[in-house]
Amino acid sequence: MEQHKIYLTEQEVPRQWYNIAADIKPLLTPPLDPGTGQPMDPAKLRAIFPESLIEQEISDQRWIDIPEAVLDALLIYRPSPLLRARRLEQYLGTPARIYFKNESNSPSGSHKPNTAIPQAYYNKQAGVKRLTTETGAGQWGSALAFATKHFGLECTVYMVRRSYEQKPFRKSMMNMYGAKLIPSPSDQTAAGRAILAAMPDTPGSLGIAISEAVEDALNHDDARYALGSVLNHVMLHQTIIGLETKKQMAKAGIKPDVLVACAGGGSNFAGLVFPFVPDKLAGAAIRMVAVEPAACPSMTKGVYAYDFGDTGKLTPLMKMYTLGHDFIPPGIHAGGLRYHGMSPLVSALLQAKIIEATARTQLACFEAALLFAQLEGIVPAPESSHAIVAAIDEALKAKKEGQAKDITFLLSGHGHFDMSAYDAYLSGELSDYEYPAEAVAESLKKLPQV
Amino acid sequence: MEQHKIYLTEQEVPRQWYNIAADIKPLLTPPLDPGTGQPMDPAKLRAIFPESLIEQEISDQRWIDIPEAVLDALLIYRPSPLLRARRLEQYLGTPARIYFKNESNSPSGSHKPNTAIPQAYYNKQAGVKRLTTETGAGQWGSALAFATKHFGLECTVYMVRRSYEQKPFRKSMMNMYGAKLIPSPSDQTAAGRAILAAMPDTPGSLGIAISEAVEDALNHDDARYALGSVLNHVMLHQTIIGLETKKQMAKAGIKPDVLVACAGGGSNFAGLVFPFVPDKLAGAAIRMVAVEPAACPSMTKGVYAYDFGDTGKLTPLMKMYTLGHDFIPPGIHAGGLRYHGMSPLVSALLQAKIIEATARTQLACFEAALLFAQLEGIVPAPESSHAIVAAIDEALKAKKEGQAKDITFLLSGHGHFDMSAYDAYLSGELSDYEYPAEAVAESLKKLPQV
Repeated sequence: MEQHKIYLTEQEVPRQWYNIAADIKPLLTPPLDPGTGQPMDPAKLRAIFPESLIEQEISDQRWIDIPEAVLDALLIYRPSPLLRARRLEQYLGTPARIYFKNESNSPSGSHKPNTAIPQAYYNKQAGVKRLTTETGAGQWGSALAFATKHFGLECTVYMVRRSYEQKPFRKSMMNMYGAKLIPSPSDQTAAGRAILAAMPDTPGSLGIAISEAVEDALNHDDARYALGSVLNHVMLHQTIIGLETKKQMAKAGIKPDVLVACAGGGSNFAGLVFPFVPDKLAGAAIRMVAVEPAACPSMTKGVYAYDFGDTGKLTPLMKMYTLGHDFIPPGIHAGGLRYHGMSPLVSALLQAKIIEATARTQLACFEAALLFAQLEGIVPAPESSHAIVAAIDEALKAKKEGQAKDITFLLSGHGHFDMSAYDAYLSGELSDYEYPAEAVAESLKKLPQV
Repeated sequence: MEQHKIYLTEQEVPRQWYNIAADIKPLLTPPLDPGTGQPMDPAKLRAIFPESLIEQEISDQRWIDIPEAVLDALLIYRPSPLLRARRLEQYLGTPARIYFKNESNSPSGSHKPNTAIPQAYYNKQAGVKRLTTETGAGQWGSALAFATKHFGLECTVYMVRRSYEQKPFRKSMMNMYGAKLIPSPSDQTAAGRAILAAMPDTPGSLGIAISEAVEDALNHDDARYALGSVLNHVMLHQTIIGLETKKQMAKAGIKPDVLVACAGGGSNFAGLVFPFVPDKLAGAAIRMVAVEPAACPSMTKGVYAYDFGDTGKLTPLMKMYTLGHDFIPPGIHAGGLRYHGMSPLVSALLQAKIIEATARTQLACFEAALLFAQLEGIVPAPESSHAIVAAIDEALKAKKEGQAKDITFLLSGHGHFDMSAYDAYLSGELSDYEYPAEAVAESLKKLPQV
């Protein structure tokens, strides 16, 4: 019998993260100080991040050791399995083999604890008492709530109002893990009050919530800020996904042809594909496909430029694909993908054509998600459904071409806290959003001049 | 490094179910025909079950082959891991080793697909077009919805009203898998109408919902009924849990001292412990502890007597521990444990003192569940929390006695669709229920005379 589930032992879980910066130095651009337009002085970041994470953010060391206490906490749920979607293959009638790395069985139901755990650890080591953060769909907030609980820190989560209203039980989970929740924009910060004054009915956005969380950390000496995506050290921590996947593929004799993952800020995509980039740079024919929502298409419709990471312009300027820091994406259910920018590392790879990007509409994603749930027995997060629909498209292309390709996608999380979205889809109430071309054009006019 | 996660390969998944009837024949009692008081003619069951399942219900063959198509569907999510709750051990400071078999990653989030899949398969083979069933917490309804979708059958689920109102997203999941949902008691059946007339505000119960589902099947030639617990063939299908666990323990060199599982109708308990009963009968010192809710304590407060399986008195009489078929349990959140009776096989083992039973209150269960979620990163179903609290008690007893026991409990499911219960617990709004002694006494007066 062919094996369709590829496990690792706990001993096989990687002991080091892979830092892609070591291998793509010519593509990298430094973050800039918005005040001076000059490369940011890392020391200036100390008000929001501990020294150890700043070091990781700017490191060009290829391999970085995972601390023992972090590994121990990761082993609560790692390694994660690599599974073959055999029933989906059969349904599609494709000669392709479809695999998926399943990150949905973590404490918060997604890949987010992979970085929440080290971030909480390094902050605890640095004597920080409380972490502030933003969350969209709630996946990241739940992950950080779990990690801070594990290491004995307090946690304040600014949750995008749209998701706060859509996902009551995400709040319950964060409460279980002892976090304090604030819907964003809120009246607790200057950034939030400014937005509320201008747009009292805004659904909020990750960009706004980031501003509030950063401001909170800046205003409190014993607090620091934690970001769930975009930054280099977050991508670093997520590479454990791809490193495990490579070991699993080696065990099962899989040579990957296509890797697919959704991308909001870029962290699950980076986690899966970065460890394969050296192989590609050495000549391996691996396609790497980042899938974003058509309603918030930073990579396929944005520009590659320096921009702020947040709406309130509190962050350094990062060179990335962006729709402009002022852009508030439509209220799609994939709340984790409602971000105006993209990880600078992922952006650099796209600009260099090492990876590809594609966009999908909401209804197509839910159609694929429902099919996957019925065939493979896992209800995907709306974010992850973007990877599924693109993987299906790749499998159908392989069918047309008669090629038995190995397609691997990342199931970044389950959708157990997104059932109201499925209700809306099943009842026919869900709609696609038009691409907000005008809003993007307006927003892009406000890009900082550097 | 010590291994804390014990996996099986797909090849190691058992190919046969274990039928305990072969090994405890002297303890068995036949179901009785309520009309005659004589042993039930199996042929009379054909209006509600297919022949193949009736054969399994009365079989005394020790091993029964798992059909290839059933195995194939089980492999969507099986084998399930055996995990060590190392952080819980450390927190308790116990010398005991605590393991748990994790059934929470199945398509419906519990052990229920283990029997939903074979039941759907055998009905499909028999030409049945539609299955009717009841569900309490929604775990069983979701599982049967998934299984009927897989094999191409229709599915009608009578969902206990209390759970229907508490768990909106369980309904969403059943809708995703294409089932038709009816809150019970309903006006769709004579049994439901009778209850509604007498008690318009009743929260419903599994006993009532069973009556409705059976009546629906009896009234439609192309429909049959499926039960998620209690019956012998259901216990049989669930033994895959314990058979896997035995293989995992053998691999890791674990000699079980105590096995713990919650018990409503008895199926997850049976699934874990039945395969170990032959070892116990042969002299192994294994304690087997069934944990029931103090609000619905069939084993610790009920009588061992012939009773109906449902409130509407449509089923054969089964000898079991019962609180009386007329008893409607208080509305505890562990909806899957709100059943007046207990599997006849489990009851026979309890009567013979091969297994033990204990009861726990709601608040103690939620306290243990929250601790487990924070330490081990899995939010347990309220049902499963009964097993957790009893396993913790065993581990604390081992600490007091200074004994390094191996305690294994069954995590029958996750609580992602029970978050409103956690909200109630966290906000201090959850209360214990007094043991409903008077209601039980009243109900026991109505036991059938045989």
